[in-house]
Amino acid sequence: MNAPHPNAARVPLPRPLDTALAARFGKRYSTAAAICLHHGKDESSHAPAPPDAVVFAESTEEVAAIVALCREHRVPVIAFGAGTSLEGHLLAIHGGVSIDLSGMNQVLAIRPEDLDVTVQAGVTRKQLNAELHGTGIFFPIDPGADASLGGMAATRASGTNAVRYGTMRENVLGMTVVLADGRIIKTGGRARKSSAGYDLTRLLVGSEGTLGIITELTVRLYPIPEAISGAVCAFPDISAAVNTVIQVIQLGVPIARIELLDALALKAINRHSKTTLREAPTLFFEFHGSPNSIEEQARTVEELAAAHGGMDFDWATRPEDRSRLWQARHDAYYACLGLKPGARALTTDVCVPISRLADCIDETVTDIAASGLQAPLVGHVGDGNFHLLLLINPDNPAEVVDAQAFSNRLVERALRMEGTCTGEHGVGIGKQQYLALEHGEAALDVMRAIKHALDPDNLMNPGKILHEA
Amino acid sequence: MNAPHPNAARVPLPRPLDTALAARFGKRYSTAAAICLHHGKDESSHAPAPPDAVVFAESTEEVAAIVALCREHRVPVIAFGAGTSLEGHLLAIHGGVSIDLSGMNQVLAIRPEDLDVTVQAGVTRKQLNAELHGTGIFFPIDPGADASLGGMAATRASGTNAVRYGTMRENVLGMTVVLADGRIIKTGGRARKSSAGYDLTRLLVGSEGTLGIITELTVRLYPIPEAISGAVCAFPDISAAVNTVIQVIQLGVPIARIELLDALALKAINRHSKTTLREAPTLFFEFHGSPNSIEEQARTVEELAAAHGGMDFDWATRPEDRSRLWQARHDAYYACLGLKPGARALTTDVCVPISRLADCIDETVTDIAASGLQAPLVGHVGDGNFHLLLLINPDNPAEVVDAQAFSNRLVERALRMEGTCTGEHGVGIGKQQYLALEHGEAALDVMRAIKHALDPDNLMNPGKILHEA
Repeated sequence: MNAPHPNAARVPLPRPLDTALAARFGKRYSTAAAICLHHGKDESSHAPAPPDAVVFAESTEEVAAIVALCREHRVPVIAFGAGTSLEGHLLAIHGGVSIDLSGMNQVLAIRPEDLDVTVQAGVTRKQLNAELHGTGIFFPIDPGADASLGGMAATRASGTNAVRYGTMRENVLGMTVVLADGRIIKTGGRARKSSAGYDLTRLLVGSEGTLGIITELTVRLYPIPEAISGAVCAFPDISAAVNTVIQVIQLGVPIARIELLDALALKAINRHSKTTLREAPTLFFEFHGSPNSIEEQARTVEELAAAHGGMDFDWATRPEDRSRLWQARHDAYYACLGLKPGARALTTDVCVPISRLADCIDETVTDIAASGLQAPLVGHVGDGNFHLLLLINPDNPAEVVDAQAFSNRLVERALRMEGTCTGEHGVGIGKQQYLALEHGEAALDVMRAIKHALDPDNLMNPGKILHEA
Repeated sequence: MNAPHPNAARVPLPRPLDTALAARFGKRYSTAAAICLHHGKDESSHAPAPPDAVVFAESTEEVAAIVALCREHRVPVIAFGAGTSLEGHLLAIHGGVSIDLSGMNQVLAIRPEDLDVTVQAGVTRKQLNAELHGTGIFFPIDPGADASLGGMAATRASGTNAVRYGTMRENVLGMTVVLADGRIIKTGGRARKSSAGYDLTRLLVGSEGTLGIITELTVRLYPIPEAISGAVCAFPDISAAVNTVIQVIQLGVPIARIELLDALALKAINRHSKTTLREAPTLFFEFHGSPNSIEEQARTVEELAAAHGGMDFDWATRPEDRSRLWQARHDAYYACLGLKPGARALTTDVCVPISRLADCIDETVTDIAASGLQAPLVGHVGDGNFHLLLLINPDNPAEVVDAQAFSNRLVERALRMEGTCTGEHGVGIGKQQYLALEHGEAALDVMRAIKHALDPDNLMNPGKILHEA
């Protein structure tokens, strides 16, 4: 949407580089159009931009070798995990080599006694939890898509569980990273805390492959709660639902998930899943703890919801009942797309301080109504983060312009309320235009200085986060 | 201890700088020896290194002006908060101007509804909690000393509550920072999460004034728990205590504090406070939650402790009883110093993965016995972090050498166990020698590149964290 630079004029790699990669990687090196196209598009509405070649890497040393070779020839490198980014992070807008890490999918060490695990970057979150089955511990971060952990770290992802368990920012303990010059570093470690120098781990988490390529990472795990329950409650209007959320957070209820869907999202779900849920703003809750604790939490939340006009409060502790309650939330994305066949979604991602959440959503709902756009709302409201799925027909330029203008107004509104343009999706190419307003030029200069210090030739996923080409 | 570079040959500032600072700051500018000495020593055993002048700043703009003036004359600047650093962070080892931020002690905005607060960097943690009195919320991070929040952010401090509430890394949401060129940036914001570009907040937290001077910060607050209780339990040996801790953490008990003191520390406390506690390894616990939850937590912990031979388990919910139980822990530092009149303490600070904690402490206890040093142990063992207070007579060179050799062995042991040389005190000048072993030269090069990019003239607290002068 934001004038991506599709690499339409794909050019062959410099012959010596092509020869060297082919010699070293054989069938794991490809310049086939279909493979390059697959590696040049993500789940966003940004136009694809295929790389000039793809290498399927199998080790940190291979990634380092590819980066070093590409650097010799001044060719960009772009890491590819599961392809689920939402802001064009993996588009080869300046051409170059896509390094596919999906084959680096080994879980290297599970350490239940330390509640941590070391994985290769291509391991996906569902794969990780499958491998943890039976250990009594789990990895809670759930961005919806079955993303790779390397990609989740690179975009500082979070999702529905962040209100209790934090984001990738809080949960990555250490990483192995290939630098622009092909050197390999280890950042952080396995200690739960450290004051030993600059926090390179946190600098690289969220750097979207522009400072280095994450090849391995150690993340925190958590004991599976003794008991889990879910609840759903409809509200007369969005403000009532949001004010319930605010009170739950302010009381310090250790809630694990608290999600908001608006009436349009519920309508989409009823259509999609043949359910008969009330088509009203609805909160979905999940409680983790001891049996006593989750009952106490649910009772507190039910009382707060009732005080705000909550209706049809329904809670469930049995896994099958919980699944039933949460199925609607999980179906939301595809159900919403189904509201407008053939549409693509421009997904917004603002996050504001929770005291401003009701205002921000109120103004936004008024704006949607005035704009005539179809835009169901789903949100991780416990963190002040919510998404609108702006359903647009990509062949209708007026609609695309309207959606972009709406998105601009939403971001400006969130920034006025001391929020951020992106709570969890990242900058990629889609949010760059807002960074100066959010951070100021001096802070952006600091980011540029760091980028230049670590990647002087601008070959690591160039054109992402920062404008410089 | 580690060959600090005392600024013995204090030199007058360049006359134009002296004149400019005197003209602008009047009585808030001083070159008096006593004032400079006060600003050139911290709570560590490192020899003092006074700055050449001190300016008492009252605003971010003043800090920016001082930094810009000093830069014109290539004179170092060093931020000073409460003077409680433990690794020589504030020593003017290359001379320069100390910028005293203690007068920047305004709490700028308390926002109970968002559970955050914005303060000037000179606000101390006790002052903040005093100002929060009656709001129902509190700031949990407690490094022992009544440090300034700016200093705590700069050293990535934590303390007894970190096992539940995290460290400054997790709790700083945003900052105002003066850069080496005198420009002012804002990092982060007030949203609970963001993926909007490089995480400058986390890069600056723990940077010890070497990349910029923190002048304001926004930190997270927490609801005061509905109920709090404390407990104390003695153990037949350290392993039994540590193994209890490990099980408590692995079970996911949401404990707020879990502290270990060894038999020598208990002996020191009995002497210091005229108590008759059992002189055995002892765990101190604190539980936060609902009345049901804290009872449940205490019962779980009591059972685990009993299974490891725990004795005299004593728990208390009334504030006065809780204070009585915890008083011993709070007295520990000065009580331990009292074991050896005239001694200074070289305080170690390793942190290891919890599965290695029992081994690490076992080997360390054996090493202490063999070394003949007096070294009581106190630890935030829920995080795998523990301190030894090596009591040394600074006039006895052999003892100083022995203590340093012991400290080296301890750090090497912790690093072998995938730990860190400093869990919460920071690097300063005292831990520099271990960084290459902990991070590797390539990662240190990245830190140096960042330092050079943001402070090309090396004027921001030079000689700290990284060796470069």
